[in-house]
Amino acid sequence: MAHHVLTLQCPDRPGIVAALATGIGRAGGNILDSAQFSDPGTGLFCVRTEFESPIEDPEEALALVGPELAAYSPDLTLRPKDRRRRALLMVSKIDHCLVDLLYRWDRGELPVDIPVVVSNHDALRGIVEYYGIPFEHVPVTPETKPAAEARLFELVDEHEVDVVVLARYMQVLSDDACRRLEGRAINIHHSFLPGFKGARPYHQAHERGVKLIGATAHYVTADLDEGPIIEQDVVRVSHTRSAEEMVRLGRDVEELVLSRAVAAHAEDRVFLCGSRTVVFSQ
Amino acid sequence: MAHHVLTLQCPDRPGIVAALATGIGRAGGNILDSAQFSDPGTGLFCVRTEFESPIEDPEEALALVGPELAAYSPDLTLRPKDRRRRALLMVSKIDHCLVDLLYRWDRGELPVDIPVVVSNHDALRGIVEYYGIPFEHVPVTPETKPAAEARLFELVDEHEVDVVVLARYMQVLSDDACRRLEGRAINIHHSFLPGFKGARPYHQAHERGVKLIGATAHYVTADLDEGPIIEQDVVRVSHTRSAEEMVRLGRDVEELVLSRAVAAHAEDRVFLCGSRTVVFSQ
Amino acid sequence: MAHHVLTLQCPDRPGIVAALATGIGRAGGNILDSAQFSDPGTGLFCVRTEFESPIEDPEEALALVGPELAAYSPDLTLRPKDRRRRALLMVSKIDHCLVDLLYRWDRGELPVDIPVVVSNHDALRGIVEYYGIPFEHVPVTPETKPAAEARLFELVDEHEVDVVVLARYMQVLSDDACRRLEGRAINIHHSFLPGFKGARPYHQAHERGVKLIGATAHYVTADLDEGPIIEQDVVRVSHTRSAEEMVRLGRDVEELVLSRAVAAHAEDRVFLCGSRTVVFSQ
Amino acid sequence: MAHHVLTLQCPDRPGIVAALATGIGRAGGNILDSAQFSDPGTGLFCVRTEFESPIEDPEEALALVGPELAAYSPDLTLRPKDRRRRALLMVSKIDHCLVDLLYRWDRGELPVDIPVVVSNHDALRGIVEYYGIPFEHVPVTPETKPAAEARLFELVDEHEVDVVVLARYMQVLSDDACRRLEGRAINIHHSFLPGFKGARPYHQAHERGVKLIGATAHYVTADLDEGPIIEQDVVRVSHTRSAEEMVRLGRDVEELVLSRAVAAHAEDRVFLCGSRTVVFSQ
Repeated sequence: MAHHVLTLQCPDRPGIVAALATGIGRAGGNILDSAQFSDPGTGLFCVRTEFESPIEDPEEALALVGPELAAYSPDLTLRPKDRRRRALLMVSKIDHCLVDLLYRWDRGELPVDIPVVVSNHDALRGIVEYYGIPFEHVPVTPETKPAAEARLFELVDEHEVDVVVLARYMQVLSDDACRRLEGRAINIHHSFLPGFKGARPYHQAHERGVKLIGATAHYVTADLDEGPIIEQDVVRVSHTRSAEEMVRLGRDVEELVLSRAVAAHAEDRVFLCGSRTVVFSQ
Repeated sequence: MAHHVLTLQCPDRPGIVAALATGIGRAGGNILDSAQFSDPGTGLFCVRTEFESPIEDPEEALALVGPELAAYSPDLTLRPKDRRRRALLMVSKIDHCLVDLLYRWDRGELPVDIPVVVSNHDALRGIVEYYGIPFEHVPVTPETKPAAEARLFELVDEHEVDVVVLARYMQVLSDDACRRLEGRAINIHHSFLPGFKGARPYHQAHERGVKLIGATAHYVTADLDEGPIIEQDVVRVSHTRSAEEMVRLGRDVEELVLSRAVAAHAEDRVFLCGSRTVVFSQ
Repeated sequence: MAHHVLTLQCPDRPGIVAALATGIGRAGGNILDSAQFSDPGTGLFCVRTEFESPIEDPEEALALVGPELAAYSPDLTLRPKDRRRRALLMVSKIDHCLVDLLYRWDRGELPVDIPVVVSNHDALRGIVEYYGIPFEHVPVTPETKPAAEARLFELVDEHEVDVVVLARYMQVLSDDACRRLEGRAINIHHSFLPGFKGARPYHQAHERGVKLIGATAHYVTADLDEGPIIEQDVVRVSHTRSAEEMVRLGRDVEELVLSRAVAAHAEDRVFLCGSRTVVFSQ
Repeated sequence: MAHHVLTLQCPDRPGIVAALATGIGRAGGNILDSAQFSDPGTGLFCVRTEFESPIEDPEEALALVGPELAAYSPDLTLRPKDRRRRALLMVSKIDHCLVDLLYRWDRGELPVDIPVVVSNHDALRGIVEYYGIPFEHVPVTPETKPAAEARLFELVDEHEVDVVVLARYMQVLSDDACRRLEGRAINIHHSFLPGFKGARPYHQAHERGVKLIGATAHYVTADLDEGPIIEQDVVRVSHTRSAEEMVRLGRDVEELVLSRAVAAHAEDRVFLCGSRTVVFSQ
């Protein structure tokens, strides 16, 4: 039996689940795990379902599942569970998020394929190629930025990329690129309670004596660092920690939060509902 | 529109969700939030669904939802979300779990009604009656134990009790009572990493210098303290803590874990699958 | 033997610990637990020491301990461990932090005495008096604010108050009052990652789909909500939570954080070093 | 100025801190951070102090600090903070704890030097040598066990090893070896709430539906898996996790707990007091 993961999102109306279940039945399917949520704010209905079916081919399975659902015009995806989502990583010179993602990927803990890593610097080629992953150096200057983004989208198409992960990529994407990547580009940044604006936020946080350091992973939007939040976490710090140690501890939580967000996205657990996300937990 | 909570459990076979969705559709229902899981160990399929419907009466709603499901012989429950589960609390002389449950209930944080508190001692009558809840003193001796349990079941029937909560009730229920309360009686006990058997477990734990203190809430079974686990948590302790302070910190985590388990049960989030539970998270 | 808690803070210079240890020796003292920290930012040295001594009277003990230390002009406090710090609570109409503090106090978990609760409303008199604590209604209008603050300081003096706890007190203290209470008035407020400015922060947080809700307890300064942080914590929330539920979960974490901050202060574990605190953990 | 870390442990009597402070003063020292604790159970007094001093040589510094302390016959250590403790790692074929320690070490997060890795198998030579660390294969059979342990102690001496880390080393050390390594050999093992004995503990835990998976790092004693606990932690698991996934999540927490225990030991924060440890937190 093939094991499929299906997602559905559409405006909520009665009958969606019945239509979906009828379709899964037509594909000889049996539901193993399913989560559904109707988002009150946007009126969107979100479904993630894992089911077994004798139909192995995803196109064929989708053709069997889909007919009754057509009336709801849903966003519908279906993939065999063992066909992993494909992530393109973008980095600059800071390596901790990259190294952590590669390490988890290598150990089989990050359920993605990584067809290519793109960087505006050549600095991290070594570690990427050590893991046997192609590294593409795409320099970015104000003049070459449009060409660099065009190259990015070529790579996204060429490698059939499902999600772009900004693993401490220090370039701002153009508004147009952000729009084209809506809901499929993930960024990570530090966060504090309370928030600190401006330069050297860890030093500001240290100066205020914060007791928690956090990080937020979110979808990229044109509004910098303000996209829909996928995952957040914090780590406790004491007065004995210097600002430099807080930077290091902050790196740890950035890595953890980013890897969790990428995994949740790659397992099709995240749904974008306006400015919020619905994340079905495991 | 009425807001209903439905649960279903039965051996897994294809078509259950379609049958359920068809039934909900017949009741004019719209699904708001749903979770489904097929337990590999027992082959049981578990569903918890919240839906809106113009049918207010739960009997009537169930009659509309049920027909297609009959072939699966499911355990099926349906209640209006605002008709709260009814909890009978049992206590002895130790009051911390009782006080915590009453406090949370009084503040509206524990989604249950508490029709009566039963105790084998009269010691805690005051606090119970302060909250306006009837207190029933049912002494237990080896001779009166059968009569005491008979009285317990009278109270369960009379007050239409959904769940019995042993809030540090220091009597062992008979095997027969455990069987009659299967899946609807919750107990709390301390448990550590690693586990300590015998008397004065906190003192044993202190002696070993544990760094975490834990508690486990579980369904009552005839096998003492070995029932299916509903919820667990721990609290960190340092070497500065005396055994007495560890007892106090252990009380805190016992309360927290018990109140979470009762809330999850009362919201119909817990399904018993053999020796395990499926707990749909909020 | 008497069990004393001593704190010392002064600009760091070699010899302080030797001078202190010599003094404790003169008082026949034996150190049980001690923590010391030299804050790099301010150059302040902080010491918290618990010691046993045959000298019961704290004045007498301090007179024996102090001479060698005089050269360092330290801030020095000494109290018998069982002489608890005295906390004046201030509230308005919102009761959750007050109720939680009283509940913990009543159970012996909050190591303070509470000689009086002050409020600008009469709404919470009942619960305060239920616990046998005097309730003082001090209304505040723009015109009466100076008189109200004068009354507050009378109460602080009369009851020998060590710390003022703003348990969701909805009035802003004057700059002068803030200065007079520097390092001995604790406030609680909600915090988020990222921070949200303006009205209805929980609704803003819900709109952004935050995954963590936090709270910060800090010393009061004239700069509103910007004082030195004592304690912070967060609670995880999922997409299923409404803004109203997030408010309730936020209350839980506010209570927890405030009670921990008050306990740390009352145990003399918190030292103010410029805009930061040093908090010696238990 | 040199930055030294000093530890002291001896039976508690009045005057120790004064004697220590006098000695540090003689070395021109200034205390930066210090923690002291008198363990009630064993009557042992434990001190960890960081201080600056113009005396760079640790032997010389110790000679200046020590005289007054001689009367207390303390266990006394002193090292420059940048002279890192030396850890010998022992492994078999399971690599997750080894890989994690090497990864953290390579990134500068684990404050130890690793002069050699010892294994009873040759399986993990590759990853160890990749990191530039000598790998020593010391096979163990019932017949060769005494010789293998003799070789271990040769390596401990030759490399001036401070701590032996059993990173999932699947051989039981002899009672004699355990005694010789008392307080300087760290082991990691899984432990659950409640504990599970015997084979396949993760499968037992899965069968019981535990909600938390834990791990414990402890000093090695002749009593297998019963040594003084240094660090513990847990990770939350849900019903969706298979026993195999629980094994993987258990590995994560084993790694984390072991690396924290090694770091605490290497920073001289852990003191052995009978069957318990005192761990001064950072």
